[in-house]
Amino acid sequence: MTINWVGIDADDTLWHTETHFKESYRQFADIVAPYLGDVVDVHQAAHDLLIETQRRNVVSFGYGIKGATLSMIEAALEASNRQISGDEVYQLLERSKWMMTHPVVLLESVHQALERLGRYRRIMITKGDLVDQRRKIAESNLAHYFDVIEITPDKDAATYAELLGRHGIALDEFVMIGNSLKSDIVPVLEIGGWAVHVPYELTWALEEADLPVGHHAFRHAANLVEAAACVHEIDATGH
Amino acid sequence: MTINWVGIDADDTLWHTETHFKESYRQFADIVAPYLGDVVDVHQAAHDLLIETQRRNVVSFGYGIKGATLSMIEAALEASNRQISGDEVYQLLERSKWMMTHPVVLLESVHQALERLGRYRRIMITKGDLVDQRRKIAESNLAHYFDVIEITPDKDAATYAELLGRHGIALDEFVMIGNSLKSDIVPVLEIGGWAVHVPYELTWALEEADLPVGHHAFRHAANLVEAAACVHEIDATGH
Repeated sequence: MTINWVGIDADDTLWHTETHFKESYRQFADIVAPYLGDVVDVHQAAHDLLIETQRRNVVSFGYGIKGATLSMIEAALEASNRQISGDEVYQLLERSKWMMTHPVVLLESVHQALERLGRYRRIMITKGDLVDQRRKIAESNLAHYFDVIEITPDKDAATYAELLGRHGIALDEFVMIGNSLKSDIVPVLEIGGWAVHVPYELTWALEEADLPVGHHAFRHAANLVEAAACVHEIDATGH
Repeated sequence: MTINWVGIDADDTLWHTETHFKESYRQFADIVAPYLGDVVDVHQAAHDLLIETQRRNVVSFGYGIKGATLSMIEAALEASNRQISGDEVYQLLERSKWMMTHPVVLLESVHQALERLGRYRRIMITKGDLVDQRRKIAESNLAHYFDVIEITPDKDAATYAELLGRHGIALDEFVMIGNSLKSDIVPVLEIGGWAVHVPYELTWALEEADLPVGHHAFRHAANLVEAAACVHEIDATGH
């Protein structure tokens, strides 16, 4: 048992993302709430409508800010029976542009964790919008830690199988680290790799999945430095 | 002089794209025209405003349907002094969804041309949105003609240099075929490759560039089959 390659997710594993989306969704709910009328928890109702719209659109729109913004505009039109004002649509657009240009903020101890993985080859595997991911990678100044950087439209089992195959990476020598059970953990375990889950403080509804409790190749870590230690432990003991 | 690799653009080189965008822009102009007041050519004014908005946004939005749609919504808000109605914003969204799901229509003789390039290694190089490009590649049933498929956020000289370097492709053994002078031809000539221009019936304003008339490594072809013949001729004669 030797680990040679470590895969690392980017959004909410290396840098903060979901906090910005959450604030956007809050602003969306503020805009939409007055149109929803007599509902018990109007913010929750707005949020539920948005998630439902995103779930419907994600196949065509993919992941990322542009698709989220189009879904917010669509959900706002629906919630308001198309009565939403131009000023309100403009606010959603402005917020979208802010998200596309906001400074990248790394999670704590990212450099330390990546240095502790220095003996392995490292591949960043991130899904979403090409332009936005490239911008964040450049701004993060983390690219030099990685042998390979892959931006994919989705992160399912087929994506991992294709991508690892293309780079000649065998499954039993590969550990994936990430915050999303659905995108980083479950598909990698499914095809026979190792996976270390580092939860983020927030999880988007479309990234939720059951914890693969008891799976021999699954580990949990409280932060990225602990995840690096898990990789060493898997490498040393293989169980 | 031996050509080993042929690069081929996809949108408006292998399948129709700009015709769909042009129809979207026409619908946009119809929606916006009533708000523009007393202008000589109101459709032209609407179109100019949209192109200006796209030019400003393309750095953050990148290329593709989602970015174009957000720019249309923004330009419509601006043109109408934010008076555009929810119904009208909804029409722009609906059109965007149509574009994301419309059937892929190949240009004429694409199979014939790709077969004539059978002795070379082929790399598809297309820019735009990951999800949309992947969908079109799958629907086109052309993937089997290509050794490599690359989807990039932009197609400038640096992109080509990085991408060709990564695949170990030397510039003097590489010919690029495409409809966009700005994205397919000029940057490839700039770094020392060969380029064959196959104009499409329409050119988006942001893809315009000067014809590199007289450049030794530049060729013009009326269609993709003729472009394949150009590649053979370059390979045989090198001038």
